[in-house]
Amino acid sequence: MTKPIPDIVVGRLPIYLRALSFLAAEGTQVTSSHDLGKRLGISAAQIRKDLSFFGEFGKQGTGYNVGYLREQLLRILKVDREWPIALIGVGDLGRALAHYGGFVDRGFRIVALFDSDPTKIGQRLGDLEIMSMDRLAEVVRERGIQMAMIAVPAKAAQKVAEACVAAGVKAILNYAPITLKVPEGALVQHTDPVTHLQRMTYYL
Amino acid sequence: MTKPIPDIVVGRLPIYLRALSFLAAEGTQVTSSHDLGKRLGISAAQIRKDLSFFGEFGKQGTGYNVGYLREQLLRILKVDREWPIALIGVGDLGRALAHYGGFVDRGFRIVALFDSDPTKIGQRLGDLEIMSMDRLAEVVRERGIQMAMIAVPAKAAQKVAEACVAAGVKAILNYAPITLKVPEGALVQHTDPVTHLQRMTYYL
Repeated sequence: MTKPIPDIVVGRLPIYLRALSFLAAEGTQVTSSHDLGKRLGISAAQIRKDLSFFGEFGKQGTGYNVGYLREQLLRILKVDREWPIALIGVGDLGRALAHYGGFVDRGFRIVALFDSDPTKIGQRLGDLEIMSMDRLAEVVRERGIQMAMIAVPAKAAQKVAEACVAAGVKAILNYAPITLKVPEGALVQHTDPVTHLQRMTYYL
Repeated sequence: MTKPIPDIVVGRLPIYLRALSFLAAEGTQVTSSHDLGKRLGISAAQIRKDLSFFGEFGKQGTGYNVGYLREQLLRILKVDREWPIALIGVGDLGRALAHYGGFVDRGFRIVALFDSDPTKIGQRLGDLEIMSMDRLAEVVRERGIQMAMIAVPAKAAQKVAEACVAAGVKAILNYAPITLKVPEGALVQHTDPVTHLQRMTYYL
């Protein structure tokens, strides 16, 4: 039996992947736990330990092959494919997410937009039409959508999350400034500028 | 001499604070490392260890007083005050941040808006006027601003970050999908929906 990987370790893998993609784009071919650690503010020992959960990726003294380690992390994180995403809430933030350039080649594509505002429904944003929430379950099923991003006001977010899970969504990225409760088995991540800011004020 | 606290520990404190604020708002008065850990997907032992860097906050078997621990974390993270923030880039995302309800009572207030688009400069957004980037240094100095949020396109972000640091900004929260290089001594945090999404695909 394989021991489950601690979630905190899983949470650091996208950060490593991001750094490796940056290095690869720069043309860097070899890196080390020391270099990565310095770049990310994580100890080299921690990085080696985290990666060791998944196998042997480097040799003592020779470092990591950037391209190889990056490919392994893409595979481990299952972003060696493209996940279709439903975006719910097409206000300022929803629009910003719909236009966000950072999804490309990183495993994700927003394929469906939903809003509850009748004046928005039927409008187009880029290639996509904004749809009524009534169509959520049907679209999630038809397009095999497992992930949603919620960008609605705080007071609407819990109900939207429940509708997503009922529709078959397995993982939610929540931008509303409230903590969502989802049923056991569904995943939720909260993204919140304040937690980032507070991490920095500590040092000021 | 006090040992420096590992940055990874500092990074978890805002998450604990967020959970404690949620509990306090619910009216919960006592919690435990076990309860917090279950809520956050972090082991109880890790939470106890993290908090022990900063003092004794609970007694064996009686748990933590939510209000007291919350106040201590506010103090440790220096968000028992209000930090003025400059927001640079008033596109869709900048507007969403300017309207974001989650800053209130959590230590931050956006006090100045900047954009490089001449058609936006002079316009108002809520109580604030959108200003030219030329005024950044002057405004940062006059208002004692130490923090900035960057919500400009990727290709403009590095120059904007450099202008911020030159103006006296000490800490940057970057929304542009590139990794910024800042001089030694300046802090930068990247917020990126993809790292959150990738943390969930691992489990799908």
